[in-house]
Amino acid sequence: MMGEFELIRHYFFPIAEVGNASSVLLGPGDDCAIQRIGPDLDLVFSVDALVEGVHFPHHYDPEKLGWRSLAVAASDLAAMGADPVCFTLALTLPDANPDWLSAYARGLASAARRFGLSLAGGDTTRGPLTLSMQVHGTVPKGEAILRSGAQVGDCICVSGTLGEAGAALDHLENDSPGPEVQAVLRKYHFPEPRLALGTALRGFATAAVDVSDGLVADLGHILEASGVAASIDASRLPLSQHLKRLVGQSAAGLALNAGDDYELCVTVPPQVWAILPEKIRRELTVIGEVVAGEGVTIDWGDHTENLSAGGYDHFRN
Amino acid sequence: MMGEFELIRHYFFPIAEVGNASSVLLGPGDDCAIQRIGPDLDLVFSVDALVEGVHFPHHYDPEKLGWRSLAVAASDLAAMGADPVCFTLALTLPDANPDWLSAYARGLASAARRFGLSLAGGDTTRGPLTLSMQVHGTVPKGEAILRSGAQVGDCICVSGTLGEAGAALDHLENDSPGPEVQAVLRKYHFPEPRLALGTALRGFATAAVDVSDGLVADLGHILEASGVAASIDASRLPLSQHLKRLVGQSAAGLALNAGDDYELCVTVPPQVWAILPEKIRRELTVIGEVVAGEGVTIDWGDHTENLSAGGYDHFRN
Repeated sequence: MMGEFELIRHYFFPIAEVGNASSVLLGPGDDCAIQRIGPDLDLVFSVDALVEGVHFPHHYDPEKLGWRSLAVAASDLAAMGADPVCFTLALTLPDANPDWLSAYARGLASAARRFGLSLAGGDTTRGPLTLSMQVHGTVPKGEAILRSGAQVGDCICVSGTLGEAGAALDHLENDSPGPEVQAVLRKYHFPEPRLALGTALRGFATAAVDVSDGLVADLGHILEASGVAASIDASRLPLSQHLKRLVGQSAAGLALNAGDDYELCVTVPPQVWAILPEKIRRELTVIGEVVAGEGVTIDWGDHTENLSAGGYDHFRN
Repeated sequence: MMGEFELIRHYFFPIAEVGNASSVLLGPGDDCAIQRIGPDLDLVFSVDALVEGVHFPHHYDPEKLGWRSLAVAASDLAAMGADPVCFTLALTLPDANPDWLSAYARGLASAARRFGLSLAGGDTTRGPLTLSMQVHGTVPKGEAILRSGAQVGDCICVSGTLGEAGAALDHLENDSPGPEVQAVLRKYHFPEPRLALGTALRGFATAAVDVSDGLVADLGHILEASGVAASIDASRLPLSQHLKRLVGQSAAGLALNAGDDYELCVTVPPQVWAILPEKIRRELTVIGEVVAGEGVTIDWGDHTENLSAGGYDHFRN
């Protein structure tokens, strides 16, 4: 049976070829689509659906959901190097509970202000709790950072630290969290998409993706689109002290495979890395190198591990 | 308790004011939002969520759903006078059934070709069957047809015929439909958004809306946004022979109150109507006039009926 990606490719990608496709520069298959909208500007946009019980727990705090739903979508703009503009929200709700709506809107408004995204439109309907967010951004013509530009020899870099949101999943019901648990929960509930870093990387990064499904899975999208492989040094994975204290030896595994961190994974040629402004370089950690071949090789010091680059598949997991 | 529209206004409209809102010309509250994307062009976009059991029946034919889901969204572009460009699809499915997906994609591809809309991106997730479609179109700068421009004295016009899709609802399970039932079912399953008429009306119509929730409800959006009222002559409602044979005296009521027709309702000043190209005029029927005041008055010949302009509310009905 085909997985999600193959199903979409097989049945839906042909529909990208119909109609007035000439102004659609990049269709399905990257973090965002791109529509050429003028002589100097490209519109970058992406849609994400969040379903209760799949993408967030049942009875999840609506204020946190408000923040998180927009952060998840905005992260795709960061991965394209786009300047945020606006978003639309299709909200399907089992009932019109004013308490829920006011808390959700409060979290959403905080995130909208923080990310510089104004609500441009929406649709509210009755049904099982589902949120569909579409974010819009712009980039100077031709400057969006695609998944397909990675070259053999490029440095593989990630922003911030990885694995904390994944560690938080075991503690969502924890009523008296200690400081480590509080720290990882904060990363899960209030992800900070790397919008400023994304725009700063325009012209420097050869490829970028946001880490939503897990580093190996998302880096895998870059590798597949660019026709290359990756070698990762596990000892260089950026891990927070909180995470190491909380999960000990499991930290590196979480950093490689857990999702929901919404950090950026980018590739940068070594000669560009050398001249990258210090301000940008400080936000990134080099964790490996783009190599020829297929898949991801992890160097664990005493042994190496070879992984295929298949992404998290919502219909398989 | 507040209804859908009041809830959205109260909690969500303030979020339209944050961020880089200067390029968002028209936020929530019209058929589409508008983003100024260049010196000469405005981007027009709209999102619609369709939920199984709410917007279409359980076990609805996926090929018909493919057509209908895009037609419903494209109709909002028609109501703005926008040239269609592309769309995104967030598809939430209980399982990845290849038969369902291939039939859905077939219907969607037919509609995409017909309407000139290419698939630009999407998201597929597991959950209760929900489709969220966002359509993108463009208009020359400042030429989008809003809901807010109707003036006292304008002619109220509708395209095509009304009420058939509403009559079809009683026959969705009909296994041996006669010709009348076949005709109304066709209007329900395969609506034809009036895209060419919408663009032709740019510069002529003062306001436009598509008839998705019912003529009175949707005309009500124009009246509210424009601060005017409407007087409708029931004898002038465009009714098909099929509908009249099928439902007799109920036809006018369906034309006024039933949804799903996806025709356009537009207002045109009488002096503009007089000079409107014959080709456009042929597609429209004048059914009444914009007057001062509030609400909709229906002239039934022997009596008049006064209706408030409140729209169909998904949380009330």
